[in-house]
Amino acid sequence: MCHTLAVNEIADHRLRAAWTPEGAAAVHLVPKAVRWLGQRIGPCPQGAPIAPDSAIGVEPSRLGDAEAVALADVVGTENVLVDRAERLGRAGGLSYLDLLRRRDPASGIAVPDAVVLPADPEQVQRVVDVCAEYDVGVVPFGGGTSVVGGVTALRGDKKAVIALDLDRLDQLVSVDRVSRIAVLQAGMRTPDVEQRLAEHGLTLGHVPQSFERATIGGFAATRSAGQESSGYGRFEDMVTGVRLATPSGEWRLGVAPASAAGPDLRQLAVGSEGTLGVFTEVAVRVRELPEKERFEAFAIDGWERGTTIVRHLAQRGLLADVTRLSDVDETDSALALSANWKTTALRRYLRARGIAEPCLLVLGWYGNAKARRAEAVRGLRAVGAINLGGAPGRTWLRGRFAGPRQRDALLDMGVCVETLETAAYWSNIGPLYERVSDALRSALHRPLVLCHISHAYETGASLYFTVLAARDERDPAGQWERAKQAASEAITVEGLGTISHHHAVGIDHKPYLTEEIGEIGASVLAAAKRAVDPKGILNPGKLVP
Amino acid sequence: MCHTLAVNEIADHRLRAAWTPEGAAAVHLVPKAVRWLGQRIGPCPQGAPIAPDSAIGVEPSRLGDAEAVALADVVGTENVLVDRAERLGRAGGLSYLDLLRRRDPASGIAVPDAVVLPADPEQVQRVVDVCAEYDVGVVPFGGGTSVVGGVTALRGDKKAVIALDLDRLDQLVSVDRVSRIAVLQAGMRTPDVEQRLAEHGLTLGHVPQSFERATIGGFAATRSAGQESSGYGRFEDMVTGVRLATPSGEWRLGVAPASAAGPDLRQLAVGSEGTLGVFTEVAVRVRELPEKERFEAFAIDGWERGTTIVRHLAQRGLLADVTRLSDVDETDSALALSANWKTTALRRYLRARGIAEPCLLVLGWYGNAKARRAEAVRGLRAVGAINLGGAPGRTWLRGRFAGPRQRDALLDMGVCVETLETAAYWSNIGPLYERVSDALRSALHRPLVLCHISHAYETGASLYFTVLAARDERDPAGQWERAKQAASEAITVEGLGTISHHHAVGIDHKPYLTEEIGEIGASVLAAAKRAVDPKGILNPGKLVP
Repeated sequence: MCHTLAVNEIADHRLRAAWTPEGAAAVHLVPKAVRWLGQRIGPCPQGAPIAPDSAIGVEPSRLGDAEAVALADVVGTENVLVDRAERLGRAGGLSYLDLLRRRDPASGIAVPDAVVLPADPEQVQRVVDVCAEYDVGVVPFGGGTSVVGGVTALRGDKKAVIALDLDRLDQLVSVDRVSRIAVLQAGMRTPDVEQRLAEHGLTLGHVPQSFERATIGGFAATRSAGQESSGYGRFEDMVTGVRLATPSGEWRLGVAPASAAGPDLRQLAVGSEGTLGVFTEVAVRVRELPEKERFEAFAIDGWERGTTIVRHLAQRGLLADVTRLSDVDETDSALALSANWKTTALRRYLRARGIAEPCLLVLGWYGNAKARRAEAVRGLRAVGAINLGGAPGRTWLRGRFAGPRQRDALLDMGVCVETLETAAYWSNIGPLYERVSDALRSALHRPLVLCHISHAYETGASLYFTVLAARDERDPAGQWERAKQAASEAITVEGLGTISHHHAVGIDHKPYLTEEIGEIGASVLAAAKRAVDPKGILNPGKLVP
Repeated sequence: MCHTLAVNEIADHRLRAAWTPEGAAAVHLVPKAVRWLGQRIGPCPQGAPIAPDSAIGVEPSRLGDAEAVALADVVGTENVLVDRAERLGRAGGLSYLDLLRRRDPASGIAVPDAVVLPADPEQVQRVVDVCAEYDVGVVPFGGGTSVVGGVTALRGDKKAVIALDLDRLDQLVSVDRVSRIAVLQAGMRTPDVEQRLAEHGLTLGHVPQSFERATIGGFAATRSAGQESSGYGRFEDMVTGVRLATPSGEWRLGVAPASAAGPDLRQLAVGSEGTLGVFTEVAVRVRELPEKERFEAFAIDGWERGTTIVRHLAQRGLLADVTRLSDVDETDSALALSANWKTTALRRYLRARGIAEPCLLVLGWYGNAKARRAEAVRGLRAVGAINLGGAPGRTWLRGRFAGPRQRDALLDMGVCVETLETAAYWSNIGPLYERVSDALRSALHRPLVLCHISHAYETGASLYFTVLAARDERDPAGQWERAKQAASEAITVEGLGTISHHHAVGIDHKPYLTEEIGEIGASVLAAAKRAVDPKGILNPGKLVP
């Protein structure tokens, strides 16, 4: 039933999805999906087409001549880009609001005054030095996949702001096979990382949905978590050392796997979202490429039972490397949209086996997980979970990076589509799920709210919501902003969960951060920033309350 | 061969060693050990006796009347102690230099001006508020087991300093069985923690050598690591939430198992050594008490081969919950001092099996570790390790807390005895071991230098050195200070390792911290401190460069 892959197939799995603009543009929704969605969320307005770049209002660059010359001195004239298309290409990330802005010629999108492309860590430091000297804002730019406004080109109180694009920092600096540490330049994208590491028989194992575009520096800046986090850990668990360019000079951290030499400042740098420095190199723990992998899926009756099972697996050390539980609606949508499954027959079969409200649990096992899997499967059977075999697991695997690619197609259809995520301790997971779902359903007309757990821990889990609704053409941005606010308040007001499990803070979550870390936490962040970046040139307006 | 214990025996294991002053005082060295030590380090001077408390010079308390009244208003007159014995009882920790000072009436030992014993977190906050108002220094005092000067009663620029003793904060606040989280007051000692959790079938699994005396707040303040860290993680891995009293008010952190809401400020609080706040409560991840445990030992030929094996176990996910590798000299001393082992016969047997330079590897397995152990043992056999059965493991288990208890006896004998520790990435472990050993051997006359690895990670390990030498009676403190400086420079100068893996910074490691975290790291720590504690009343002179 289950599918076992050879080593090079595994490498291929992670690599073949390498992103191309053509690939991203090519995704359309199949007619079946369009019909089904219409039944669920009702009629949608005719969506606005993507405005041609030439239609979008872009202010002239405010970068002064002296600054431009000083930057060109560091990186070469050809790597200081001030033309409209290049600047527009780094004007924000991939949130629904970002996408809306790109469709509206009058949206007043914030565009950097220049794009600067340094070649190496030394040049990044010198670019930061120049910007500090001329009081120019610096937005570090990697894959541009932020969905919280993390790379929006805010000027703050600066007269100009640059996008410091790390695209040329794409080198695997070193591999220490004995220590199992690789030093990666910050602009490396994950497919390249996996390809280069595979040559050494190694893997990083960081596979977020943004895998195809996102960069090592971005993962470090945002405390990213990947789909394989149960097995490989969150990105911050992988980081052993960091190198940052800051207005106070280079900052390097990390001489040992663990230390009691004061607070762990690596964990202050990681998650600092470009406000404390620009990551130029990150040393990460790597692992041997597993010899095999196995994906499979189970159906469990109901969300509550599903979360209980995942909790038991986490607390007994039996999590699969990929562990992903969909709620009833997300399972329903997966069944409805699957081209492969005979959905009606499957539903009938599950009902006959006592599963009225199926929740899909996808498990992916890497390497020699035989004993662990056997025990996990025993536990699953004991609570009536039905093994659906390898096909649904493989279906998920094939589509694991598809979500972001479908969003333009959905916007074209007039759909409001966005995701949001949080995490909480297990005893809060039930109430948090209810409150966020209720908040979204109250704030939107007839929305489809899907949820899954993709990151489970001994003490709690993440909740990842996907929301689809007919777009309100009178106020498309306000429609989502109100829904997001309702959900964010449901998460934070009683300290039920964190405002972000892995999307980070950026601009969108900033209003909720102080509630979570306290006035003291906010003042500590601000103090750290002042110490490193006294003029406040680094990523103005992000993160720091 | 191997010994399997029932649940209540395991709880008993951790509990029976509950510390009493009588227990600590009762430890003497057996004549065999005295003879053996004499052969190894040569003749020792007649040790100075412990000076009676009455002989030690103690300044009168400088706490003003107004401050004393304000503190008594908070905690009651009976909990503001200014008498000599109480103050002297909180005058520093348990380093060799601390012990020397207690033997020297003229040592000028730093003694707090008062001991204040609040009853709960609210009182701690109010005590901190009073001290901020009157500009009085605050040294948080838990078990008093610091070996780096972390609880030395330095006044800094304050006119007075109090020891804020957390002894009365000894409550298990709550147990969340679903989330597997317990909230513990900061003054709880580990035996009490384990006893209270065992009533719920749970365990914390934090077992440092200071287990009997050290407190939850102290573990959090110092990023402690226990003997079972391979299975249960370091203390910072267990912390889910913290509550601190600070001059800026109460600070609470931790709403989810993982978060991308900015840097992980829990990891800034943990390890702050009382300089950013006083821990009053710590929420920790707990686990089910394992149903069984199994201890065993192996002999491996040579340190290099031993470290390679431990590295392979760590990188293949096969570490035992307790994994401890002694070098040749530490193994030799264990064999020489063991009352149980027929040492000569054992050495002969090992030599016949090809082990000329035995290194002892103790493994302790908790719960259902059958599959993991089987694979680990296969790996050990493949490199010629000899299974010594359960007896040496049990011997280690019985003596696991004995080290600190023997130190007074060794000082009585005229021995200079101290430990120091570091950690590094695997490819640095060999050079680090050599350089620290060489530094200690060069700085001391005919020392005995023993080393073990007790904390292994995928990317590296700790090194824990025990040093014994004949005391230089002309300058006993200077003798050790010079050796410590040589070792610390060997560790830090080329960034080979961290200045501390789990002992923390305190006063002793402060000169080496900036080398490790950089000028920027030092300025970030200082800025965070100023933000939270603008007058600098918290633990003056510690940690922050």
